Amino acid sequence: MKGVMFSINPEARFIDISNEVPAHDVFHGAFVLGTAFRFFPRDTVHLAVVDPGVGSARRSIAVRTGRHAFVGPDNGLFTFVYREGDYRAWKISEAKYTLGGYSTTFDGRDIYAPVAAYLSLGVSIEEVGPEIEDPVSLPVPEAVYGNGTLKGEVIHVDQFGNLITNIEMERSYEQLRSGRVVTTISGAEIRGPVGSYSEGPAGEAFCLWGSHGFLEVAVNSGKASDLLPDARRGSEILMRYDS
Amino acid sequence: MKGVMFSINPEARFIDISNEVPAHDVFHGAFVLGTAFRFFPRDTVHLAVVDPGVGSARRSIAVRTGRHAFVGPDNGLFTFVYREGDYRAWKISEAKYTLGGYSTTFDGRDIYAPVAAYLSLGVSIEEVGPEIEDPVSLPVPEAVYGNGTLKGEVIHVDQFGNLITNIEMERSYEQLRSGRVVTTISGAEIRGPVGSYSEGPAGEAFCLWGSHGFLEVAVNSGKASDLLPDARRGSEILMRYDS
Amino acid sequence: MKGVMFSINPEARFIDISNEVPAHDVFHGAFVLGTAFRFFPRDTVHLAVVDPGVGSARRSIAVRTGRHAFVGPDNGLFTFVYREGDYRAWKISEAKYTLGGYSTTFDGRDIYAPVAAYLSLGVSIEEVGPEIEDPVSLPVPEAVYGNGTLKGEVIHVDQFGNLITNIEMERSYEQLRSGRVVTTISGAEIRGPVGSYSEGPAGEAFCLWGSHGFLEVAVNSGKASDLLPDARRGSEILMRYDS
Repeated sequence: MKGVMFSINPEARFIDISNEVPAHDVFHGAFVLGTAFRFFPRDTVHLAVVDPGVGSARRSIAVRTGRHAFVGPDNGLFTFVYREGDYRAWKISEAKYTLGGYSTTFDGRDIYAPVAAYLSLGVSIEEVGPEIEDPVSLPVPEAVYGNGTLKGEVIHVDQFGNLITNIEMERSYEQLRSGRVVTTISGAEIRGPVGSYSEGPAGEAFCLWGSHGFLEVAVNSGKASDLLPDARRGSEILMRYDS
Repeated sequence: MKGVMFSINPEARFIDISNEVPAHDVFHGAFVLGTAFRFFPRDTVHLAVVDPGVGSARRSIAVRTGRHAFVGPDNGLFTFVYREGDYRAWKISEAKYTLGGYSTTFDGRDIYAPVAAYLSLGVSIEEVGPEIEDPVSLPVPEAVYGNGTLKGEVIHVDQFGNLITNIEMERSYEQLRSGRVVTTISGAEIRGPVGSYSEGPAGEAFCLWGSHGFLEVAVNSGKASDLLPDARRGSEILMRYDS
Repeated sequence: MKGVMFSINPEARFIDISNEVPAHDVFHGAFVLGTAFRFFPRDTVHLAVVDPGVGSARRSIAVRTGRHAFVGPDNGLFTFVYREGDYRAWKISEAKYTLGGYSTTFDGRDIYAPVAAYLSLGVSIEEVGPEIEDPVSLPVPEAVYGNGTLKGEVIHVDQFGNLITNIEMERSYEQLRSGRVVTTISGAEIRGPVGSYSEGPAGEAFCLWGSHGFLEVAVNSGKASDLLPDARRGSEILMRYDS
């Protein structure tokens, strides 16, 4: 893919956000992209591929937000981009911006790479094909910010084994600032939120606010995913607080 | 290695094709390079190292095709480059283009990296040492395109667990276009060739034409290498067709 | 992190030395950096993060040697840099060179990345905060170069399973050049030092001088860490020689 892009735009520079997304796990890829893309400069073109449906009726799309462009499959990989609001999407259909006649199994090389390279050269995104109104978005479970209880679930496990939940710091700040909080995950009561990984008790799981603004469960110099083997994506987390 | 190259050519730009080739598996590296190199722009310098014989009598070489240069050990790593025809090879012996006095265990850093960097600066490949006529080529098993039967074998297992065979699309197009095909691998009859991964039946192995032009065995959203644990490099695949 | 650096310095170029350092293993990271940094050009800015103590009282620092700059946590990650002598260190405290208000869990993104990017733009390292005299250095076990015996230990296991010891070639050259050497590790007598990996006996562990100048234990086309499962960081290695 980079060879194709480099052939089209010899001035292109490439930064890999991740090559560690598990095969076929679109939500995992969407989350990783979602926590990283906004730290890139204006007019960055993001190419993303996690694509179990390559070659199917699944569309190939290009997306534009106020600051960035995105190219990839229309399978929900840009879910966290859409949640920022303010985006438009186009279905890629213009053959002159793709590699014709190669394969039906490697859209990353044959479609996304050339389109991304042409966008980086200044080709207008509107030229890649017709605008669409309904790009695919994956369901993102929403935490419930109740009276005396916050109920969320694990939505991501990162490479350090931290369990990232969907409880957002900025939406729970008011609830949690006044009193004692009891947090439970997978039947275990854990401490926190603490201020940083190193403040957590040794050898125990605890929670803290992660760098993406979500509550996460971690272990000081260890892996929460090992210490809490029952906890995984979808596991419930409960925070009871003095309301 | 990149530090060495960057020190010699501060304008060099680096693209990693793969850092996942299993240690000592020269054929695997040769295949990965073979499917990728032609997508890079003219005058790209490809540095490749899979090198169980570092420090032995094994030569270090530089290779030139019509479009690209290659630097690495003379152990067959450029086998698929040579199959394109039209190449010349030189044995690296000119000390002024290598790092002297460092080690006998890291030719990548001490020989290939500096030579690749000097080539990228415009040094003529003929200056690195004497031309050789007999660079090492690994045997690549050839499929048999028979009357009523195509017989091939698995030559590569990729990171998605797809089993890539040596049956080439362009050499079997005529045979397979007319009638029903029965494909067998490791004692199992599989469907296909289908048009894309997503057209394959769920939970079953099937075959399709891969992005490199070879027949491959895959599983929709799964790993063929898991579903067919007996199949590996060297496993036979048979296609019987109405001739 | 690269997105942050790229936003501050759009001309920055990035080279990854390693993304394979085991989580929390500061010494491993220090060794990998220590064997690589000197091959980079003058004025390279090295950003390193292996950081179990993120968010704690552990300082963030910038370091300058005669040729290079370094940015990261003050936890010993630059131990092998300091061993070169000739360095100065500063505690990062100047808020205008960091991302404020983000998190207490991702100093790489919020502190090291922006500081490294500003240094690459030419900001003077003295501006990042006050100079410190006592950056943290990890203890590096020293080999004993005795009379008739060299006693060292394994200090690193690399990605090929080679066991790197702290016995240095240039400090043992005189002792070993004259006579027969008997080398023992984990109760096993091994051959060597041989001249290169390919000179080692097949299927046996042996020793040789590695590309970093340290004695290492290897297996020809295999993994010493598999063949000698008891050997690990801290395992003793003995060389008895005719003195």
